[in-house]
Amino acid sequence: MVGVSRSFNPRTGEAFGPELPDTTPAELDDVLGAAVAANARWRSAPRAERAELLRAIATSLDADTARLAKLADDETALGVDSLAGEVGRTTFQLRQIADQVDDGSYLGVRVDLASTEPLPVGHPDLRRTRVPIGPVAVYTASNFPFAFGVAGGDTASALGAGCVAVVKAHPAHPQLSEAIAGHISSVLQERGLPAGIVGLVRGFEAGRLLVTDARIAAAAFTGSFAGGRALSELAAKRTEPIPFYGELGSVNPVFVTPQAAGRETLAADYVASLLLRNGQFCTNPSIFVVPAGSGVRQAVSELVAAAPAAPLLAPAVHDLFKKRRSLLAGIAGAQVVSGVPADAAHDWFVPPELVTLTAADVLASIDAVETECFGPVGLLVEYADPGEAVALADRLRGCLVACVHGGENDELGAALVERLALIAGRVVWNGWPTGVAVTAAQHHGGPFPATTDAQHTSVGAEAITRFVRPVAYQSMPSSLLPAELR
Amino acid sequence: MVGVSRSFNPRTGEAFGPELPDTTPAELDDVLGAAVAANARWRSAPRAERAELLRAIATSLDADTARLAKLADDETALGVDSLAGEVGRTTFQLRQIADQVDDGSYLGVRVDLASTEPLPVGHPDLRRTRVPIGPVAVYTASNFPFAFGVAGGDTASALGAGCVAVVKAHPAHPQLSEAIAGHISSVLQERGLPAGIVGLVRGFEAGRLLVTDARIAAAAFTGSFAGGRALSELAAKRTEPIPFYGELGSVNPVFVTPQAAGRETLAADYVASLLLRNGQFCTNPSIFVVPAGSGVRQAVSELVAAAPAAPLLAPAVHDLFKKRRSLLAGIAGAQVVSGVPADAAHDWFVPPELVTLTAADVLASIDAVETECFGPVGLLVEYADPGEAVALADRLRGCLVACVHGGENDELGAALVERLALIAGRVVWNGWPTGVAVTAAQHHGGPFPATTDAQHTSVGAEAITRFVRPVAYQSMPSSLLPAELR
Repeated sequence: MVGVSRSFNPRTGEAFGPELPDTTPAELDDVLGAAVAANARWRSAPRAERAELLRAIATSLDADTARLAKLADDETALGVDSLAGEVGRTTFQLRQIADQVDDGSYLGVRVDLASTEPLPVGHPDLRRTRVPIGPVAVYTASNFPFAFGVAGGDTASALGAGCVAVVKAHPAHPQLSEAIAGHISSVLQERGLPAGIVGLVRGFEAGRLLVTDARIAAAAFTGSFAGGRALSELAAKRTEPIPFYGELGSVNPVFVTPQAAGRETLAADYVASLLLRNGQFCTNPSIFVVPAGSGVRQAVSELVAAAPAAPLLAPAVHDLFKKRRSLLAGIAGAQVVSGVPADAAHDWFVPPELVTLTAADVLASIDAVETECFGPVGLLVEYADPGEAVALADRLRGCLVACVHGGENDELGAALVERLALIAGRVVWNGWPTGVAVTAAQHHGGPFPATTDAQHTSVGAEAITRFVRPVAYQSMPSSLLPAELR
Repeated sequence: MVGVSRSFNPRTGEAFGPELPDTTPAELDDVLGAAVAANARWRSAPRAERAELLRAIATSLDADTARLAKLADDETALGVDSLAGEVGRTTFQLRQIADQVDDGSYLGVRVDLASTEPLPVGHPDLRRTRVPIGPVAVYTASNFPFAFGVAGGDTASALGAGCVAVVKAHPAHPQLSEAIAGHISSVLQERGLPAGIVGLVRGFEAGRLLVTDARIAAAAFTGSFAGGRALSELAAKRTEPIPFYGELGSVNPVFVTPQAAGRETLAADYVASLLLRNGQFCTNPSIFVVPAGSGVRQAVSELVAAAPAAPLLAPAVHDLFKKRRSLLAGIAGAQVVSGVPADAAHDWFVPPELVTLTAADVLASIDAVETECFGPVGLLVEYADPGEAVALADRLRGCLVACVHGGENDELGAALVERLALIAGRVVWNGWPTGVAVTAAQHHGGPFPATTDAQHTSVGAEAITRFVRPVAYQSMPSSLLPAELR
């Protein structure tokens, strides 16, 4: 039996639109065959041609922003304005990667001319660059249908690096995935480039087969811990293992020192960050750690209690959210504040929730606390003294981002920054974890379980290096060197 | 029952020296405890202190070169002069990594000042550096007892990066491993640094436990395919998987085009490269691909037939060599030329061997051909036309290094370089694979099965990056930033 993907209206719980059948193994074989054939062409495409393709895809998406954002909102309820902004972020990213490809510094070119030093033998002429790694499998995310979608950062990085991509569409936005793939196809066709440069597949089984297929050379994934871990193990068990760049979701801590606890907008800013896209951010402020008796808890509780119910983006997210929410609420010592319940006309909506615990409670139930709850649940933790806050920081596992709100000459703040740098990919001072700037210095990654590869990032200038590998050329005549090494 | 390591004289087959017991699980626990305690100190050591430690270890080893080389030769029979040279290479490497640590460019520092661009939101101040990854397990190699030994490139990279190392001694040189560890201990003690900065363990079981222990954050391995693959799977299956940098041995091709086949010293240079350290190089020229009827085969056959038997470095190498040699000689179509057999007084010595095949034979038995034979066996392959040579290059698997001997405007040479860059970490023109220069542009790595991580190198300026991971600091006050980001 072949499964199907169908759009789902998160505001009503109703399915809509065409039934899109899962990719069969035979179809997947065709997609991969086309990818390999296209790879031979694309890996030797001049960098200028690759950059131009990325810019053309950006132009095509930009021109269709309104329709695409509407379609995405119909399928995910993440909000038309927010999604239109995300289109802009995605096309900005495509152009930024295009600039990097033109620039070429990601190749890490290094030239050592032949030398008689060091004694006794010297060394020959050695020149190193980076070459495309081969066809890349891209697993798109539910919560950023553009930025981590079919034309998102992973696909852009792969194409920019000179790799073809086979993209697994996310079941939460099947029609949007088709629409974005349509833009890419048109742009490829206009240029006379093979359609196999970007393939699209659908369905759980196709995703599993993709990462185990010998024709795939690397994989990038953004999604759940369970899914990412399973795929990463498949990648490692292959006859020829491949790099697997998985972002598996993250429990991100935000610490507040006594010096910062009195700030007027702290509670409101926290709740705003917590409820962005109804809590469906991988950089969600999962654990908010505040001084006991500082009034932060009271202020946050009031804001959450007044916050309305809102939709979650897909039925699977719904189901998992309910389980995780119960797990958190069931921790010994937990006190729960709920937001405004959904009325009868919106029974698919979920109210936000705040779970409060003491630091001692958290240390006694660290595994439950460290299980990501994707959706509008905040965990607020009160510490009795600085030692408890530091002890908690020492117990946390790897995360994408950690924040400290502190003051000047803040000893506790300094101690926390030092410790959080040991477990986080990004450490923020007096700010919130949501919002990942697309800049050269950005690092969107972090130690396991936040990702399966703490040394790479999926956002920023280094993202493209996931899909190249170094090659050194020794004593090579200039005419046989890649252009950048001559 | 606790196993023991004992030195073995490869020239006589006799054991000698003390019985050194394997590290017990309880002892390993102590070593790891000391490593974790030392890590807290070492990860925050200023870079100048780290560089100074590496230089002091180099100075200590240099001063003891004669004794160390003699001890290494007693245990491995790799040759006193060659081993003394390797001490120099190892201390050169320690100093080169020290220079890199002083220089700091391996940190990949990137600063993006806060900006109102790009519209609409701009971005905050973001600064990225790299931080030590944590305690590193180092698995030393049999065939380079210094350069890939207790104070070899992996240990030096880890210490330079700010990580502590727990080193598994190789059973082929247990006394030498102790001697080198003794140098490191003395240098640490002189500086008042914790002994746990470099731990030493012995035995197969300790090696297995090491990579699975939660206190180890990364592993570097140089050795056999079977051992490296097994350890890399253990690393991937951990509750928290860790990076595993394995160099698993490699089948390195050397192609000769018709333009180059007539060169006078070609056969002699090939045999010299083949028999370096009696064939026990990971960059050994495993497959020598020459034009049929060019006379190369005849010249090589004569040289191999006249070459004397020589010792292999350890009993385990001996056993595996015999199996692999039979496998190669048993390939359909194989013709075998043997060197001068050992006399009765040296029955532990093995004569070199040349196995010749046609390109068609090789393509029919590619799996056997692609199984590394560690020792003095050359595989010479004759191709009938350029198409056959290219077809063979297209079938080969990942390797550390591939070579092409060609002439000017050599079409076949150009086609081979292009293809070999798809499977090799280094491509050499008119040279031999043995000899890995320690320079910034070097890349000593390559696609699986040559290594488990094609994106990293164990030699050259990039080796240190294996043991750091990026962290971005956002809106961080200067006083809380790592020094290099201020």
